[in-house]
Amino acid sequence: MTIETVAETAANASALEKGRAIAARLNPDLEDILSERYDAVLPGFSETLIESAYGRFYAREGLDLKTRQLATVAALTALGGQTAPQLKVNIEHALAAGAGEREILEVILQMAAYGGWPAAINGLNAALELFGERARSPEASAWNGQ
Amino acid sequence: MTIETVAETAANASALEKGRAIAARLNPDLEDILSERYDAVLPGFSETLIESAYGRFYAREGLDLKTRQLATVAALTALGGQTAPQLKVNIEHALAAGAGEREILEVILQMAAYGGWPAAINGLNAALELFGERARSPEASAWNGQ
Amino acid sequence: MTIETVAETAANASALEKGRAIAARLNPDLEDILSERYDAVLPGFSETLIESAYGRFYAREGLDLKTRQLATVAALTALGGQTAPQLKVNIEHALAAGAGEREILEVILQMAAYGGWPAAINGLNAALELFGERARSPEASAWNGQ
Amino acid sequence: MTIETVAETAANASALEKGRAIAARLNPDLEDILSERYDAVLPGFSETLIESAYGRFYAREGLDLKTRQLATVAALTALGGQTAPQLKVNIEHALAAGAGEREILEVILQMAAYGGWPAAINGLNAALELFGERARSPEASAWNGQ
Amino acid sequence: MTIETVAETAANASALEKGRAIAARLNPDLEDILSERYDAVLPGFSETLIESAYGRFYAREGLDLKTRQLATVAALTALGGQTAPQLKVNIEHALAAGAGEREILEVILQMAAYGGWPAAINGLNAALELFGERARSPEASAWNGQ
Amino acid sequence: MTIETVAETAANASALEKGRAIAARLNPDLEDILSERYDAVLPGFSETLIESAYGRFYAREGLDLKTRQLATVAALTALGGQTAPQLKVNIEHALAAGAGEREILEVILQMAAYGGWPAAINGLNAALELFGERARSPEASAWNGQ
Repeated sequence: MTIETVAETAANASALEKGRAIAARLNPDLEDILSERYDAVLPGFSETLIESAYGRFYAREGLDLKTRQLATVAALTALGGQTAPQLKVNIEHALAAGAGEREILEVILQMAAYGGWPAAINGLNAALELFGERARSPEASAWNGQ
Repeated sequence: MTIETVAETAANASALEKGRAIAARLNPDLEDILSERYDAVLPGFSETLIESAYGRFYAREGLDLKTRQLATVAALTALGGQTAPQLKVNIEHALAAGAGEREILEVILQMAAYGGWPAAINGLNAALELFGERARSPEASAWNGQ
Repeated sequence: MTIETVAETAANASALEKGRAIAARLNPDLEDILSERYDAVLPGFSETLIESAYGRFYAREGLDLKTRQLATVAALTALGGQTAPQLKVNIEHALAAGAGEREILEVILQMAAYGGWPAAINGLNAALELFGERARSPEASAWNGQ
Repeated sequence: MTIETVAETAANASALEKGRAIAARLNPDLEDILSERYDAVLPGFSETLIESAYGRFYAREGLDLKTRQLATVAALTALGGQTAPQLKVNIEHALAAGAGEREILEVILQMAAYGGWPAAINGLNAALELFGERARSPEASAWNGQ
Repeated sequence: MTIETVAETAANASALEKGRAIAARLNPDLEDILSERYDAVLPGFSETLIESAYGRFYAREGLDLKTRQLATVAALTALGGQTAPQLKVNIEHALAAGAGEREILEVILQMAAYGGWPAAINGLNAALELFGERARSPEASAWNGQ
Repeated sequence: MTIETVAETAANASALEKGRAIAARLNPDLEDILSERYDAVLPGFSETLIESAYGRFYAREGLDLKTRQLATVAALTALGGQTAPQLKVNIEHALAAGAGEREILEVILQMAAYGGWPAAINGLNAALELFGERARSPEASAWNGQ
C-alpha cells in the first residue's frame, strides 16, 4: 500500500480501516502476527490493537508519522521496565517511518534525563541489538524471539 | 542569543557553555530561576542541570531541537506521576523550539497507548492549563506556581 | 439504558456503540464531559476514549463489569503517580458497577504489597475524599475539580 | 488444609498464622520455597512475606480471594516492569483461587488502557507461557526458572 | 522511649511490638494518626502498617536506621509520582533518625540519575517546603495537610 | 588511584575530572567499558555519563560514597523494571564503596514497602546472583552478560 493510498483511505474510513492502512505501512505482517498469537484466546485482540493504537493515534492528522514513532521510542525508553521487546518493535516502526538510526539513538540517550541512566542504557542496548540483527539478516523482525 | 550564535558556540565549547546557549534559547531565565531556588542549599545545582541536561543532551547534533522537546513531552506524559510541573515547563520549551500547540496535544494523546489513558488525560489537562495561562498573560512562565 | 438494553446492544454493534452503552451505565454524562473538554482541541477525542477503553475492554465478555472496575482500581492505585483524579472517577464507576465501599478499600489496601505503602495510602485518601464528597452531595461527580 | 480450616484459623489467629493458612491454599510449597531461597541470607524473610502479604492482606475479610488475586494480576500487569516472574506466580495463585484462564486474560488485556499496550502484551505473553507450561506438565510451578 | 529501650524491646518481641518501638522513635504520634484516619473503615490498618513496615523492615538488624531512612528518601524520590506527601513524612523520619538536611538533599539530587530530573526537582521542592514549615513552626508534622 | 588522590583531584577539577576519579575508585574499567560499547554510535557517551552521574553526583561533598551507593541500590530496586543489569552494576559499586553484602540485602528487602514485594524479590535475586558469580570467579564484572 503506497502512502497515497493511505491518505485516500484516511478520509472516509473507519478507525479500524485507517489503523490497517497505517499498520501496513509500518509492518505489513503486523495484524497477522497479532492475530496468530492472541485472537484464539482473546477474540478480537488484533482488531482492537490495530483500531485503538494505529487507527485512533498513528493515523491522526496533526503530527507526522516519523515524529509520532520517535515520541513512542522516547516514552518506552523512559518507562524502562517494558523496554526490550516493544521498544524493538517500535524502533523498527520508526525506521519504517523514515527515522535514521542516529536519530533513534539520540532520542534514547536523551531519556537519561527523564527516565534515568539505567533506562537509557537498557534502551541503547535494545536498539543496538536490533540494528545488529537487521544488519545480519535484513528480513529479521523484532517480533521474533518474544 | 540568536540561533547562529548557538551554532557557533557549539563547535568549540564545554558542555556547560553549550548547555547555557541552548537553555537561553528555550527560556532565557532558566539558569537564574534554578540558581535562585536551589544553589544556596545544593551548591552547583543550576550549573549541573544546565550542563547535564542541556549541554549533554539538547545541545547534541543528530536530532533537531523541536523533535527533542516533543520526545520529552512524550516521556513526561507517559511517566505520568510527575506530570504537571515539569511537563508544563517542557511544553513551554517545545513551543519555544517551534512546535505547535496541536503537535504537542497529539503527542500527549498518543501516550494513552503507552502510559495509559489516565496519564494522557493528566497530560492534556496540564497542556490546556498552560495554553490558557499563556493566552491570558503572555509573560506567564510555567515555573511560576511550582 | 437498562442492563438488558446493553446486552442487546452488545451483540451486533460496533465497538463505539458498545462503548457508549457501557459508558452510559457507569456515568451517563461521561461522553458529554469528555467531548466538552477535549474535542475542540483534539478532534474525535471523546469517541476515541469511549470506543477504545469502553467498547474494546469494558464491553467485552469473559469477565463481569464489577470485577473489571475493581481491577482498574487496583492498577491505578499501584501505579501511584496518577492516582487522585482518575482513581476517583474509576472508584465512582466501580460503585456504579455494584462494588461496595469496603470492597474498594480492600483492593486499595492490598496494593501496598505491589505498589508500596505510599501508593496505597494515597489511594485510600482519594477514596475517602470521594466517599465524603458523595455523602455530602449525592449529585457530586469525580469529574468536577479536575 | 480445607477452606473450612482456613475460616476457623482466621478467627483467633495471629497475622502470621492467618497468612500461613491462606498461602497454603494458594500454593502449599510457598513458605518452603521462600525459606530455602532467602532465609539464610535475610533471617525471617519467609515469615515476613507470609505475614505481611498473606496474613495482612489476602487473609482479610471484605473481599473474596479470587477477586483479590485478579486485582493483583491487574496491578502487576499495569506496573509492567516486574511482570514475568511474579505475575506468573500470581496467575498461578489466581487459578488456585478459582479464576478461569479467560478471566485472567481479560484482566490483563484491559490493562492496556492503564499501563499501556506494551505492559498488556508482556502480561499476555507471561500468561500464555504459564498456561502452556502447565498444559505440558501439570506439576510445574511458576517458581521454577526464576 | 529511649534508644536503649528500643534495643531491649527488639530482642524478644513480636514484629508488632518491635514496629511500635521504632515508630515511636521516628514519630511518637504515628500509630495514633494512622489509627484515627483509617482503622474505622479498614479494621487493623494502623497495626498492619506498623507491623509490616516498621516491625518487619526498620526494626531489623543489619543496617542502621539513618541509612534505612535515607534509602527510603531515595526510593520515594526516584518513584516520582507519589512524592510529596509520603516523601515529606519520610524526610521527617530521616531527620529523627539523625540525618542532616544536607544529606537528605544530596540523596534527592542524586536521584536525577535514576528517576530523572523531574523526579529530583519535585523531591527537592518537597524537602524545601518541609524544611520551611519546620523552621516556621517546629511542632508542624508532615502528616498535616495530606 | 588512592582515596587521597581522589580528594586532591576533587578540589580544583572539572566535573569530568572529578567523575573520572570517583569512577576509577568504583570500577577502574568503567569508562573503557562504556566507551567501547557506545562512543562509536553516540559520540561522547562515556564522557557524558562519567561527567553527569559521577562528576556531578557521586563526587559531591555532603554525603559519603557508601551511603550514596546504598541510596542508588534502593532506588533501582524500587523502580523495579530495570532492575537486573544496572542494579548488579551498582551493587558491585556499593561493595567497592565499603558496603557489606548484608547491608545491601537489607536495603533491597526494605524496598518491599515502597516498590512492592515483586520489586524486592527481583532485587534480591539479582543481588544473590551477583554474589554467587563473584564467589565463583572474583574477577567477574556485572558488566559482562548485559
